[in-house]
Amino acid sequence: MNWYLQNGKESDVVISSRIRLARNLKNTNFVNNSKKEGLEKILKNIENITENIGYNLKFIRLKDIDDLTKMCLIEKHIISPDFALNNIDVGAILINEDENICIMINEEDHIRIQVFSSGLDLEHLLDLINEIDLAMSSFVPYAFSEKYGYLTACPTNVGTGLRASVMVHLPGLTQSGNVNKVLEIVNNFGMNIRGIYGEGTDTKGDLYQISNKQSIGIHEKEIINNMKVIVEKIIEQERTARKMLAKNSINLEDKVYRAYGILLNCRKISSEECEKLLSYVKLGTDLGIIKELNDLKVKKLELYTKPANLQRYTNKILDGFDRDIQRAEVIKNIINN
Amino acid sequence: MNWYLQNGKESDVVISSRIRLARNLKNTNFVNNSKKEGLEKILKNIENITENIGYNLKFIRLKDIDDLTKMCLIEKHIISPDFALNNIDVGAILINEDENICIMINEEDHIRIQVFSSGLDLEHLLDLINEIDLAMSSFVPYAFSEKYGYLTACPTNVGTGLRASVMVHLPGLTQSGNVNKVLEIVNNFGMNIRGIYGEGTDTKGDLYQISNKQSIGIHEKEIINNMKVIVEKIIEQERTARKMLAKNSINLEDKVYRAYGILLNCRKISSEECEKLLSYVKLGTDLGIIKELNDLKVKKLELYTKPANLQRYTNKILDGFDRDIQRAEVIKNIINN
Repeated sequence: MNWYLQNGKESDVVISSRIRLARNLKNTNFVNNSKKEGLEKILKNIENITENIGYNLKFIRLKDIDDLTKMCLIEKHIISPDFALNNIDVGAILINEDENICIMINEEDHIRIQVFSSGLDLEHLLDLINEIDLAMSSFVPYAFSEKYGYLTACPTNVGTGLRASVMVHLPGLTQSGNVNKVLEIVNNFGMNIRGIYGEGTDTKGDLYQISNKQSIGIHEKEIINNMKVIVEKIIEQERTARKMLAKNSINLEDKVYRAYGILLNCRKISSEECEKLLSYVKLGTDLGIIKELNDLKVKKLELYTKPANLQRYTNKILDGFDRDIQRAEVIKNIINN
Repeated sequence: MNWYLQNGKESDVVISSRIRLARNLKNTNFVNNSKKEGLEKILKNIENITENIGYNLKFIRLKDIDDLTKMCLIEKHIISPDFALNNIDVGAILINEDENICIMINEEDHIRIQVFSSGLDLEHLLDLINEIDLAMSSFVPYAFSEKYGYLTACPTNVGTGLRASVMVHLPGLTQSGNVNKVLEIVNNFGMNIRGIYGEGTDTKGDLYQISNKQSIGIHEKEIINNMKVIVEKIIEQERTARKMLAKNSINLEDKVYRAYGILLNCRKISSEECEKLLSYVKLGTDLGIIKELNDLKVKKLELYTKPANLQRYTNKILDGFDRDIQRAEVIKNIINN
């Protein structure tokens, strides 16, 4: 099953974990300094070794992916919007069936290996990505400096080239008004925190993405350990905030069940309202207040109410008006089945 | 069964009909001009003849009715708030089991005979009230002038002493923005229109009360016929407005089902919000959109979510905070049973 429809560890607070490694080819211009022919050569090169890397990866050029599928991948945070929109002619991905491995070719760097998992699972992800990295490096020589480590297009990634990120759901801290305080602390511990579609985007449905700032002068294992410690602190704080909320149980029950009642009964609903209501519904399910749902259904609701994945689910191309109507239908289907 | 829990004619628009006759005793000071002893004499007089009037009427003094029961009667529009609050020592009612007959003694007039029915049923009510009036008049001589008709404490009631009123539900006209135009026309036809708790009160849940202005120089039958014609016009207009609303069916369905979803899932709800949502739910049920409910359940919901009747239904004395919680419980019970 796809990782994003599975349940993971600490999934009441942690939605998903992700690690990516930025790598570039030795003696080759960075993507932003390359002519089209050079990038095309890289694509061919990688296409040829795809089978050798293993993991049942499939090589697909961006231009061979239809727009809806691209949007679906963006909504699942498997590829970046920038990559999908701007690198169409020169970009490609290597992806497996479960979609827990996706290597972007010719994004900001020549190679960006990414691995994903549901819940908090950074150690396993690190083992997996190191394995993949080792496999790749035996077929393509990386740009590496003894002094700096792996060389990358953007200096912030030089060194390990590693960015770990964890998506967390913080409705308790948001409602208690303490979310900014916690986020500030996270920031002081060398972590970035931002909206769920990456830098500069808004927070939706009380979801936040935490990632490491530093990638140089520190070992991969240390980055992951630091992140784990921070995330565990956040989990603790969020759970405490939820306990406080639950003390005024009738108010909380009322809020989460009203959200559930609207989702189950509306006949049309926008993506934005849906995200807001699902945040309450997830909170209610995680706290055992909403008995009519389980975590996996909430995962499905979260995925298949997003604009592109909704169309994939219903197998229909829909404009905004019809999406709002179909979204209400899909919610009912998922809850009742 | 009590009339207010039954279904009547044209009940998609007309909630209930009511007629009252104002009568005063011959050669007796009006209530506002009487000493307590005089009013006490009237009470005794009426108490003695109660059985003779028939209809299984029971004579009950206001001071023997507990506050909750009084509030329940007010919420059902069977007695006026003024009467219940200000005439405690000298007031009484004659009421039957079904509560479709209630005669107020020593309200503004010595005798106010009232009859009620669900839906639009003015002709039957006129027959019934004339029968009761005839029975009473054979035991108590009325103040009557050949020139003016029945004499009453307030000049606006002199003549027939008759006021007919009909409570209508006008969500279609309210939403189409035409309700004021229609109400103006009603006014020009010699009818009053006002909020559901009588003069000077606000409109709640799109409910309006229509009553005749004129009671002198016109025969009772004519008053009733005029009112019937006007109400039938309003019914027509309201149904047309609803058809227009239903053309944009997804919007209407969405609104009524969201209201239904909140009512069924909330864990606390105020009286005001409940009235607003029930207005949508009644509209949805009347238009056949909401299949999960029927008219009788909507009647029950409307009655037992009112503050006093809620406490009667649950058999508990509740403060405002607990009422909001119990109201949510009662709604679930009524819908699911």
